[in-house]
Amino acid sequence: MHIFPPTAACNAQLLGDAESEALFSGQRVLARLLAYEVALTRAMADARIITANDATAICERIADFAPDHERLTESSRQDGVVVPELIRQLRKHVGPDLASSVHLAVTSQDLIDTSTAQALSDHARIITARLDSLLSRFQSCDMMFGDAVIMGYTRMQKAQPINFSHRLGEWRETLHPIAALWPARIREMAILQFGGPVGDRSGFDGKLTTVAGSLARALKLHDPGRAWHTNRRVFVDYGTACASITGSCGTIGKDIALMARDGTLHLSGGGASSAMPHKSNPISAEILMTLATYSTALLPALHHASMAEQERSGSMWSLEWIVLPQLCILAAKSLSLAESLLKSIESITGD
Amino acid sequence: MHIFPPTAACNAQLLGDAESEALFSGQRVLARLLAYEVALTRAMADARIITANDATAICERIADFAPDHERLTESSRQDGVVVPELIRQLRKHVGPDLASSVHLAVTSQDLIDTSTAQALSDHARIITARLDSLLSRFQSCDMMFGDAVIMGYTRMQKAQPINFSHRLGEWRETLHPIAALWPARIREMAILQFGGPVGDRSGFDGKLTTVAGSLARALKLHDPGRAWHTNRRVFVDYGTACASITGSCGTIGKDIALMARDGTLHLSGGGASSAMPHKSNPISAEILMTLATYSTALLPALHHASMAEQERSGSMWSLEWIVLPQLCILAAKSLSLAESLLKSIESITGD
Amino acid sequence: MHIFPPTAACNAQLLGDAESEALFSGQRVLARLLAYEVALTRAMADARIITANDATAICERIADFAPDHERLTESSRQDGVVVPELIRQLRKHVGPDLASSVHLAVTSQDLIDTSTAQALSDHARIITARLDSLLSRFQSCDMMFGDAVIMGYTRMQKAQPINFSHRLGEWRETLHPIAALWPARIREMAILQFGGPVGDRSGFDGKLTTVAGSLARALKLHDPGRAWHTNRRVFVDYGTACASITGSCGTIGKDIALMARDGTLHLSGGGASSAMPHKSNPISAEILMTLATYSTALLPALHHASMAEQERSGSMWSLEWIVLPQLCILAAKSLSLAESLLKSIESITGD
Amino acid sequence: MHIFPPTAACNAQLLGDAESEALFSGQRVLARLLAYEVALTRAMADARIITANDATAICERIADFAPDHERLTESSRQDGVVVPELIRQLRKHVGPDLASSVHLAVTSQDLIDTSTAQALSDHARIITARLDSLLSRFQSCDMMFGDAVIMGYTRMQKAQPINFSHRLGEWRETLHPIAALWPARIREMAILQFGGPVGDRSGFDGKLTTVAGSLARALKLHDPGRAWHTNRRVFVDYGTACASITGSCGTIGKDIALMARDGTLHLSGGGASSAMPHKSNPISAEILMTLATYSTALLPALHHASMAEQERSGSMWSLEWIVLPQLCILAAKSLSLAESLLKSIESITGD
Repeated sequence: MHIFPPTAACNAQLLGDAESEALFSGQRVLARLLAYEVALTRAMADARIITANDATAICERIADFAPDHERLTESSRQDGVVVPELIRQLRKHVGPDLASSVHLAVTSQDLIDTSTAQALSDHARIITARLDSLLSRFQSCDMMFGDAVIMGYTRMQKAQPINFSHRLGEWRETLHPIAALWPARIREMAILQFGGPVGDRSGFDGKLTTVAGSLARALKLHDPGRAWHTNRRVFVDYGTACASITGSCGTIGKDIALMARDGTLHLSGGGASSAMPHKSNPISAEILMTLATYSTALLPALHHASMAEQERSGSMWSLEWIVLPQLCILAAKSLSLAESLLKSIESITGD
Repeated sequence: MHIFPPTAACNAQLLGDAESEALFSGQRVLARLLAYEVALTRAMADARIITANDATAICERIADFAPDHERLTESSRQDGVVVPELIRQLRKHVGPDLASSVHLAVTSQDLIDTSTAQALSDHARIITARLDSLLSRFQSCDMMFGDAVIMGYTRMQKAQPINFSHRLGEWRETLHPIAALWPARIREMAILQFGGPVGDRSGFDGKLTTVAGSLARALKLHDPGRAWHTNRRVFVDYGTACASITGSCGTIGKDIALMARDGTLHLSGGGASSAMPHKSNPISAEILMTLATYSTALLPALHHASMAEQERSGSMWSLEWIVLPQLCILAAKSLSLAESLLKSIESITGD
Repeated sequence: MHIFPPTAACNAQLLGDAESEALFSGQRVLARLLAYEVALTRAMADARIITANDATAICERIADFAPDHERLTESSRQDGVVVPELIRQLRKHVGPDLASSVHLAVTSQDLIDTSTAQALSDHARIITARLDSLLSRFQSCDMMFGDAVIMGYTRMQKAQPINFSHRLGEWRETLHPIAALWPARIREMAILQFGGPVGDRSGFDGKLTTVAGSLARALKLHDPGRAWHTNRRVFVDYGTACASITGSCGTIGKDIALMARDGTLHLSGGGASSAMPHKSNPISAEILMTLATYSTALLPALHHASMAEQERSGSMWSLEWIVLPQLCILAAKSLSLAESLLKSIESITGD
Repeated sequence: MHIFPPTAACNAQLLGDAESEALFSGQRVLARLLAYEVALTRAMADARIITANDATAICERIADFAPDHERLTESSRQDGVVVPELIRQLRKHVGPDLASSVHLAVTSQDLIDTSTAQALSDHARIITARLDSLLSRFQSCDMMFGDAVIMGYTRMQKAQPINFSHRLGEWRETLHPIAALWPARIREMAILQFGGPVGDRSGFDGKLTTVAGSLARALKLHDPGRAWHTNRRVFVDYGTACASITGSCGTIGKDIALMARDGTLHLSGGGASSAMPHKSNPISAEILMTLATYSTALLPALHHASMAEQERSGSMWSLEWIVLPQLCILAAKSLSLAESLLKSIESITGD
């Protein structure tokens, strides 16, 4: 039972977004890692680095491979990443004759980064849909309440009256250019990581460029032409774009909390107080502010994680794992919260 | 199955600390909330605000109260906190005659903050023990390896030889004054929150000061004499002290990773590479750096959360819930990781 | 005398970048504010809101206007921004007949934001040039040292040999896509702010859209069609892009400091030690790491500043002023430091 | 002329605190560095490491030493710290016979850290006085306005009436325990740094412990018994305590801005608007929020800077220089702003 604040579990209620979280689940990651191994095996056969027969046999064995999850968990604590134990088990499963043809020319980071990129591409699809939906909601809000004359505030003090439409326009214009960039991210994030131990695609008689091409095609990813083990820019930009969404939704929350405070705006379904029956708290508006502030706090860690030294940084890579999924989940959650908050507006009372 | 990086679950492997996490579990929080209601009911009877009979009856009903967890979860999403629904269910459970004598003079924040304070007091006990243990480990390390002459480095460049004892001394002297303060925190954090709807202990004919005293005694907490709904200093200081531990352990990790890099220090049980069989990666040293950098990133959110406006801030309070348990878990985890890392030193080779 | 660490002044030595700092100097800002008033006056005449004669007279008076700087300083402390006092002085200077035709339809934020946007556009020009120059330096470095075989390191441990060309390639590939986006920013940042007191361009018989157009043309800016008083996205994105540069240069510093540590790379002009004559410290490499870490720390404040409530937020706007110029200066400084660091490489010794 | 936002110079208006800034000025730092050299020279003579005659001669030459500031500036860019060039010049100034007796057994960090500690001790004196003054101001505010009945707000919504005394009490109780710790910091921060090149006080026939004692006495500092080159805990704690002050003042600003917004509280001397003559903006209240948010953002950099690797970290040390003085200045500024803001309250109108 995981429900009560202040617990990690309550946080799941406040922060959680099931659809986004699923993208980073162990099951999805495992499926992607094995799909990579299958595609790699075939690409190695295409490049005549292993025989077609061996490739077929390996792929068949991967199809009926059921890893020992307990040992994966155990070993990932020691190895810092799940791949070494997964490959150990897989090699044992394919048997001694084929073992040496498995996981050729790649390193853990090739598999994990590709899996993350695939998760981000799927996440971009979720975000694209939710941004569309929120922008439509702005439009219907504008039709319903846009003409209401409300007090404009500057520097937190009464300024002069505006239409609610104007304030709504600021929210929309903040999110509109963000939304315009999002559909392209679905494809942009679908990027192959493939570099081998030190990331230089060396060895194998120069055939690895061809392998990269086949691998990318099989996984429906694009091959950037070289590995990007320490070039984390694409991931940093994605996480930062998520924070921009969460921050923009935070402003909506802040504005609505202030409007509810003034009695200008009425919401249905406000939160109850255990002590004051008359209260109806704008919980979603507050949580949007919470998520936005928390999200900005994750940015230094994300950007710091991009300072990956030499050919691969374990400490920075692990930091990225902690922060990037959180930023994704926060953005998705903020969009759905913002939309339901706008939907719950019952009336806007001009002053 | 929750095992693979980069997932929240893998993070559990990297960041997780079962003993600390348990303190914030839903079950523990629920038990503390109900213990608060029991103690409050008795204190109200002592102050003759409710009758002794009613108090006894209420406490008996709390003893056999089994809340509907699903509805608690559901409602905490709407109310932003679990208390309103818990009290709704409890009032229904005690029946209409007693309902109005339940949860008198208090607000959600009284219960939740007290529960958090109790968790932090228990956490301080864990940390105290682990700090002791780590300091002992420094001593045994010093006995085993202190005389090894190693190269001293300043500004990341070779400077002149030192004894390993000196470097170990810097680690110890950083943690020693931190450790000295910790046992006192066990008692310092055991602090009652009790203020009522707007935190001023008003109403009830001035009897609430007496109620606070009885309540604190029953829960083995101390009563600071007034509520601290928006005075988050004690929690901020606690979380910051946790970050100081995590940061100090991060330096140990950084130094050991560099020593392993130079071949000066050998560790048992290093992490395997999926691509390079000769490698033995100092995973724990890297993770200590990761945790330390992540922990520093949470500090702005923690300190920001202390800027709680007016009589209670939902947005800042929720932010505290997200950040404070993480800081606690990171500190506990870092201490145990640092100790096991030091334990795994096999040899130190002078240059 | 401003030279000694640890002082704000020493920081000027470490962080400072004269060319970038000049863009934010009082003189440049003042010049831009007055240019805005001139262009506005003419645009108001074009729209027949004021007479052509009045406009000419006002512009002539602005040409010989010498503000009282002491009072500007004094008042900006009280008003939170320099514009109100500047306009007070200007109105007095133009005389009672013309005073009411000065600064019509605008607010302080219109002038200040436009001035900042102009500074950022100029800054983008500086960055574009320095990125070009650094990318060329990578190329010449590659020609000189690319073939050197050095040890590759993963997870801070020896992995297998690589060409220096590969490591250089990671640096270049991180900065290359960043550089590709920069020339367009020169124009993108040249954006007019014009909204009036509450940002809605209301009043003046609907003529303000035309005014905005004339104003933008006169100042060689583009008019986004509405004000963006609380939509800080463009500034946030610019500051974040700066942090990406600084972070990318930080990785170069980290890698070079490690190579110097190993004796793989030799630099000319290293820093002296007051105690150890044999040392040659890679100061620029260290400072690049410092700037990068500091730069990431500013990101939450920048993104937080974008949560501008209602029609204008004094607190968030002021926060932006503190952070955004720093991010600009850090990026410019990092690029010139990185280039001079690469230029100072004397040799790379294969293992 | 440095007056206009958004410029570093305007920031001086908003952030600046002349009294605190002076502590970190080049002149003050230089004076402290030379005082250290004088005290060191005498301590070396006391310990018979150099002759009494040589010591007297060196101290006489230091008294008439006028360093070439331009070269100090120039060299500190290359050496990363001013000390090497200062010692070069000083050695030349004392002449070849005495040169080798100057700056014995110490390193740049010994001098710079001691100078910083002295600045922080002086800063603690400023803060102690301002905290006292602010706490008195709370008392007089309470006497003047404490009985006013105002609306209490929880979760940003109307809750129930409170006395203004209660809200004031929360501000006071947040700052009171902070203030209680401050006088002790004046002495705690007066700490000697003395460790030599790698921080182990080695060499000189074991006489350096005695030297440390004499040196500390002469400079009126206490000797912690060993160097703390990489143990930055004392500085981190000091900077964090500063941030706690700034954060606590931020809450006062936030509350007062909201009260001004509601018309509950009237301030004298509000800021003018260039567009709306009726407005009186609570600039100081807003700036307190700005400073508080900015201050929290500096914490990760401060704590990160404490992860100083091996025997001395140039990159982390430089980061500390950037951040620590800012945190000091922000705390001092916030205290004086908060006090003048409270002083400017003209009336509090009950609802």
